[in-house]
Amino acid sequence: MNRELYRREYDQYRRVVERRLHALARARASGDVDEACRYVLTGGGKRIRAIITILSCQAAGGSARAALDAGSAIEIMHNFTLVHDDIMDNAPSRRGRPSVHVRWDVNNALLAGDVLLGLAYRALLRTKTRSLGRIVELFTRGLLDVCQGQSLDLEYERRTDVTVEDYFRMIEKKTGRLLSTAAEIGAVIGGGTPRTVAALSSYGRYVGRAFQLEDDLLDATGSEAELGKAVGGDILERKKTYLLLETLRRARGRERAFLRTLLVKEGPRARKGRRSPAEKRLIGRVRALYDRHGVLDDTRRLIQENTDRAVAALATLRASRASALLRSLAEELIGRSS
Amino acid sequence: MNRELYRREYDQYRRVVERRLHALARARASGDVDEACRYVLTGGGKRIRAIITILSCQAAGGSARAALDAGSAIEIMHNFTLVHDDIMDNAPSRRGRPSVHVRWDVNNALLAGDVLLGLAYRALLRTKTRSLGRIVELFTRGLLDVCQGQSLDLEYERRTDVTVEDYFRMIEKKTGRLLSTAAEIGAVIGGGTPRTVAALSSYGRYVGRAFQLEDDLLDATGSEAELGKAVGGDILERKKTYLLLETLRRARGRERAFLRTLLVKEGPRARKGRRSPAEKRLIGRVRALYDRHGVLDDTRRLIQENTDRAVAALATLRASRASALLRSLAEELIGRSS
Repeated sequence: MNRELYRREYDQYRRVVERRLHALARARASGDVDEACRYVLTGGGKRIRAIITILSCQAAGGSARAALDAGSAIEIMHNFTLVHDDIMDNAPSRRGRPSVHVRWDVNNALLAGDVLLGLAYRALLRTKTRSLGRIVELFTRGLLDVCQGQSLDLEYERRTDVTVEDYFRMIEKKTGRLLSTAAEIGAVIGGGTPRTVAALSSYGRYVGRAFQLEDDLLDATGSEAELGKAVGGDILERKKTYLLLETLRRARGRERAFLRTLLVKEGPRARKGRRSPAEKRLIGRVRALYDRHGVLDDTRRLIQENTDRAVAALATLRASRASALLRSLAEELIGRSS
Repeated sequence: MNRELYRREYDQYRRVVERRLHALARARASGDVDEACRYVLTGGGKRIRAIITILSCQAAGGSARAALDAGSAIEIMHNFTLVHDDIMDNAPSRRGRPSVHVRWDVNNALLAGDVLLGLAYRALLRTKTRSLGRIVELFTRGLLDVCQGQSLDLEYERRTDVTVEDYFRMIEKKTGRLLSTAAEIGAVIGGGTPRTVAALSSYGRYVGRAFQLEDDLLDATGSEAELGKAVGGDILERKKTYLLLETLRRARGRERAFLRTLLVKEGPRARKGRRSPAEKRLIGRVRALYDRHGVLDDTRRLIQENTDRAVAALATLRASRASALLRSLAEELIGRSS
């Protein structure tokens, strides 16, 4: 699909999702916690999880409208995880605004997260489908897996023996599961056959993997304009990304000893806009090692591979405008749509 | 029902619930968060919410087994609220053990709470019923109301103009809603008529109100043995209980000025076992005011009144062993069963 056309269509979907989320946010009574929920739900974002839900429903033969509540529910669940993760990571900002626990306080943020999860289930339950039990089950499995991914992430922070395999296990749960759940729930609402549901679930899983790897890559190689935040945050925060773990696996001697010092988590660090000269030197040195050991190219290859698999999963579906959009969405994510 | 017999029966129900909760706790993989969930689920308690769910199902014509998963789900949801509330209140202990955020840390406790909520939905979804959509909806409404109650509680901490009416609005949500939800969900699973469901829902609501008032009263007048913790915690923590707010409404002059100083929340305070002489004097002075203004007697009257209403709600049901147990449960809660 033509990139221009894709973007126009994507934007139309996004606007519909935005309207629904704003309506859900308005329905809450007053109070700090409710205001925090509104703040989160009206804070923008790509709304990619909601759009994957809706497109998957259409690709499986259903209508966009049938999956709007479920898509909003997954988007709200995603925002619940962001609010709680930001507390755990002590992150000062999110999408260019103060995070909830900074704008209010930890107690209100904790509770706003809980309320968001309740609102997510409430939105999901508005879905008109004969498979309501099934989608609530998939949704709950998604929730538990995302929490398990976050739990692994916390665990890895303290460990210095994390492997590349551990990393993939973690992002499979933390990032991949919600995208595959979105696709799966959409497909079920659309009345897809088991084969269709499985194909769309695979699509979501591969997109999730490509998405996370792209995120890790951009943090090391992107520009501040692309990221919307300063480059190198993962390195400074001692995140155990694929880039770091794979480079460590390949490095020897002094390089290895240096990289191992990056496995030890320091205290929480504010993601400030400006980097100090020492920070910039550190980021540059690590990035050079990623490059020298071929890990940047390797990551690009992996992103390509996972995108190809996502697209291949779509090939088993009947051709439709929705599946073409899903294909563009996967390709656009890694910035190579034509 | 004979108190001895009631207690024996209650204990049988409790043991069944315990077994199910232990089984659910065992099913989790390893890791700090999973261990924290196990710690919470195997930490004992009266399991009153699960037992009300099961008895309501039976009173509505269903089997105990049919409501076991739903009852466990409500019990798990209750424990989710305790874990998160303990973080917000900075409470060092719960049921004689360190609270989760003390035994592990805030991040693990936050995440364990989230996982517990997921496990609660998962347990609920195991229920075999044609009304699955309805009970998930009731459950979600319960979750949102409990969060709203907690949100009001946080708000009241900062306000000095909280009224008795505000207090009742708050406990209706924070304590009452989960008990009425338990009864309602049980009744729906049991296949009760709308009238039966409404009656059991009322029962739960009145029991919840009596329960909370009893809790507030015991904190001021009970013994350490009855409470399982030191007396007067609410007073020291500046909790805006019915006792305090109603006494304040009645007091004038210097008494009123003194009581108003108790509306200002200080920093978080550890619930230590031992009270200092100054703390004991403060507790004694406040309790004497409660007594002098007739608020202790008034509270006892209100507890009696709500218990009577709970029992009256049961009177509209067909007589059964389950409804007799529900009646004993209400009466036992306020320690006047015969």
